[in-house]
Amino acid sequence: MTDAQLIATEGASPQNRRAGEVFRTELNPVDFLRRAAYVYSEKVAVVDGERRYSYRRLAERSWRLANGLRSAGLRKGDRVATLLFNSAPMLEAHFGVPAAGGVLVAINSRLASPEVGYILEHSGARFLLVDAALEPLITPLALSAVTVIRCASTSDSEDEYERFLTDASSVAPASWLEDEEETISINYTSGTTGQPKGVQYTYRGAYLNALSEVIVAGMSHDSVYLWTLPMFHCNGWCFPWAVTAVGARHVALRAVDADLVWQVIDQEGVTHYNGAPTVQLMIINHPKAHRLERPVTAMVAAAPPSPTLLARLAELNFRIVHVYGLTETYGPITVCPAQEEWQRLPTGQRAKLLARQGQAYPSADLVRVVDEDMHDIPQDAETMGEVIMRGNNVMSGYFADEAATAKAFRAGWFHSGDLAVWHPDGNIELRDRGKDIIISGGENISSIEVEQTICAHPAVLECAVIGIPHEHWGERPKAFVTLNSGASASADEIIAFCRERLAHYKCPDAIAFGPLPKTSTGKVQKFVLREREWANARLESA
Amino acid sequence: MTDAQLIATEGASPQNRRAGEVFRTELNPVDFLRRAAYVYSEKVAVVDGERRYSYRRLAERSWRLANGLRSAGLRKGDRVATLLFNSAPMLEAHFGVPAAGGVLVAINSRLASPEVGYILEHSGARFLLVDAALEPLITPLALSAVTVIRCASTSDSEDEYERFLTDASSVAPASWLEDEEETISINYTSGTTGQPKGVQYTYRGAYLNALSEVIVAGMSHDSVYLWTLPMFHCNGWCFPWAVTAVGARHVALRAVDADLVWQVIDQEGVTHYNGAPTVQLMIINHPKAHRLERPVTAMVAAAPPSPTLLARLAELNFRIVHVYGLTETYGPITVCPAQEEWQRLPTGQRAKLLARQGQAYPSADLVRVVDEDMHDIPQDAETMGEVIMRGNNVMSGYFADEAATAKAFRAGWFHSGDLAVWHPDGNIELRDRGKDIIISGGENISSIEVEQTICAHPAVLECAVIGIPHEHWGERPKAFVTLNSGASASADEIIAFCRERLAHYKCPDAIAFGPLPKTSTGKVQKFVLREREWANARLESA
Repeated sequence: MTDAQLIATEGASPQNRRAGEVFRTELNPVDFLRRAAYVYSEKVAVVDGERRYSYRRLAERSWRLANGLRSAGLRKGDRVATLLFNSAPMLEAHFGVPAAGGVLVAINSRLASPEVGYILEHSGARFLLVDAALEPLITPLALSAVTVIRCASTSDSEDEYERFLTDASSVAPASWLEDEEETISINYTSGTTGQPKGVQYTYRGAYLNALSEVIVAGMSHDSVYLWTLPMFHCNGWCFPWAVTAVGARHVALRAVDADLVWQVIDQEGVTHYNGAPTVQLMIINHPKAHRLERPVTAMVAAAPPSPTLLARLAELNFRIVHVYGLTETYGPITVCPAQEEWQRLPTGQRAKLLARQGQAYPSADLVRVVDEDMHDIPQDAETMGEVIMRGNNVMSGYFADEAATAKAFRAGWFHSGDLAVWHPDGNIELRDRGKDIIISGGENISSIEVEQTICAHPAVLECAVIGIPHEHWGERPKAFVTLNSGASASADEIIAFCRERLAHYKCPDAIAFGPLPKTSTGKVQKFVLREREWANARLESA
Repeated sequence: MTDAQLIATEGASPQNRRAGEVFRTELNPVDFLRRAAYVYSEKVAVVDGERRYSYRRLAERSWRLANGLRSAGLRKGDRVATLLFNSAPMLEAHFGVPAAGGVLVAINSRLASPEVGYILEHSGARFLLVDAALEPLITPLALSAVTVIRCASTSDSEDEYERFLTDASSVAPASWLEDEEETISINYTSGTTGQPKGVQYTYRGAYLNALSEVIVAGMSHDSVYLWTLPMFHCNGWCFPWAVTAVGARHVALRAVDADLVWQVIDQEGVTHYNGAPTVQLMIINHPKAHRLERPVTAMVAAAPPSPTLLARLAELNFRIVHVYGLTETYGPITVCPAQEEWQRLPTGQRAKLLARQGQAYPSADLVRVVDEDMHDIPQDAETMGEVIMRGNNVMSGYFADEAATAKAFRAGWFHSGDLAVWHPDGNIELRDRGKDIIISGGENISSIEVEQTICAHPAVLECAVIGIPHEHWGERPKAFVTLNSGASASADEIIAFCRERLAHYKCPDAIAFGPLPKTSTGKVQKFVLREREWANARLESA
């Protein structure tokens, strides 16, 4: 294969454009790879266990995947699902599927078989790439309409996926994209209430969000990105495209194993990774944890880092970037970067400032916090309102669900359902994820505020606070706490600690100790705690 | 002024969008400042001599400029010209003018009065911001239709510009932008042949090019950008917007004085600057030159860095990024980044690889090299063809000049007029700027190839090669050489040096020693040399 084949620029031009326009090309994150194959052709692009290969090869393999899918009958807009770990094939799917003109549906590999079946059915997937280890998930399903391609993730020529690539052409496929607002992927929400919804990302949104991530994470050509965040989660916050846009290196990681994480951080010179605080905790509490020679940037989402976590991370030379968002906003849409002038502050105070969700990503509109009539709430750091978003980092709607889309988009803004206060400087600070607010005696109690207070206790590793039923007050806060290994604290001590720092009505009445239930991406599952507590309450009152 | 005023998000929303669309905002580089005013509100954004102020203040001043212009009668699309140095007002014009809905026409402050007059006339400018020191340029002009605002560039309240700001509202102005493909600025070409042409940039192009510059330069929130490149030149390659997009710091510099450059590099912790090789030479040959503790990234355009320059820059801890482009491509559109694996090569070989112009910017289409029938030339590193470009980093056309636009855009691509070879790996290498090619006995001689050979001579600081008339061969190469201070080399020595390295027909017949004529941005003016030589020839043959 010559380069002319790999990166054809004449005739059936691979880069899409409206007919006759010289100064406009539709934004398409696939073009980041097209370019990297030229500009960083021989650079190691992908490290996946024993496999290491260049941007030229990543491009070649992605074009083969695209051409193979077309040969197998893919038509424009057909859904191509994946059930894959963070691996080379998963990365290739993020380029090969849109290069073919398909729509990527990356399914959470930790779902149960019926959940996988629902998503395949609802998305109308025509193709499925499945890792051999995940095949049991699809065995019980009737998949007659789906072409299944099995990935053993070896270079073995007997591997079905490898054979699929080998049999296909490596010529860069001509783009079928006509408008950058077409759908590039559908990401199903975790669906803790009701069925999961299919969040649609556009080519334009994915492209712009990827460039924003470059800026927010501070990545450049010499960055090495570790794949702790699953690519099935919001397309890995668009990092498959972001890392490729700068020509940095992808280090795949099939499972977040702290031992392996430390090994790879040291051996591969990792500079960036993303994860929820629980992932961070797992990493910093591992016996192999040690101070890093070069700073490593860790983007943390889902919950603000506690002072303890922050201090420990700084000690190890991790640089924290706190971000916030939802599946509907391509992952993060706000960031609270650590400011130069905060360096001089004590850790507790820094943690407090860093706990804010901040303001919009470079390519997003500024977020607002509004009351029920869509009016801006006062920027007084006290009044609570709903966070609403708009612009290039918001999904184009829920797939095949006009009612849910209309509801989420009412009054021309996306409604996050999350509650926040607005600071005088325009930054927002989350008080609760929609249904997590605790209403006690008519007062709103922010579960996050209580959690942050408890996490400031030196013995506490992490905690979750929910409202439990109360005859008189309606609800009262209860805290579920995990202590640092070797540390001890009684329920009374922790409650007293809270009463010194919070209005008394906000302090928990009860504390339970032990590990917290978590989602596959490391988020605490408050609904599990809530269901258990409320079921008990129903039992007791029955 | 409260933040709510500075960054209104409700009602007359400052961020433009098509009616009713939740997931699309028109791309507008002004929004980078809107965001920085929130996310990096207190950070020092601008250093201009004794003045230092924050992103909040840069935003406030830019909104005042915008509101002032509207109050003074600006209508959407009106041209606002500037005759300013690299200064705080010049930066504010890059945000305030588009925020007002005007079109920025940043005029080269080194032009002669009639040239300034031509541009004001041709662009139909309704407003002009002029630095007090440049007022003599406009004194001879009849500017009855132009509102002139004089900047003394002091914080003095008597300053006309400062008074203009003080009198205006600081509320973020509602955007009038309806389509991101509207014109944000017109940049007049240097016009070495005929009258200058007005190159139109779009909001979309400026936004995307700015993000590309972030990636190519490797800037992040802790970068400090030194304004050596004039902002009147291709809007400073979109760096006013790029630096602001990452929340980095602008350090203004009214004139490129090497003494001052070194002072600022040391005092302000500069991390990035851009300049032609002659600017680089001026900096590295200054007595204050010394090895830097942290690496400083120097983007170099207009001509590839010579091995001597490269070695010296590496010695001082400058990291070189070689880029290439034209006014019509928002400044640079290709980049040849130094590859990791080149580190081990000797300087001469590294210089040779780095001398290539590379391939497209992240937001640009891949460039092609074609023959006269628009077919790709062979990627054999030998055949020469014309470099053509297309996509988001190409101008939307020449202002009020349909014929020139149609000619530049023939066959659906922008024609650079520059000649290059195409390497097997898909990277391009310039052989000549259009009219610089030397045709001798029917053979094409690349003036750049000869220049690079001569520059490899240890005594040579810089050189320019042109074709001079020859009775028998039509043209023959002549070299104009500047030697390093203290170094010596004879014409015969340099010719012999060339004959060891080049086909003999390519070697210069004559060498002239002395300084080279340059443009205001440090580019060698070959046309000056050519005019002189050809005039002499005409005299001789007359």
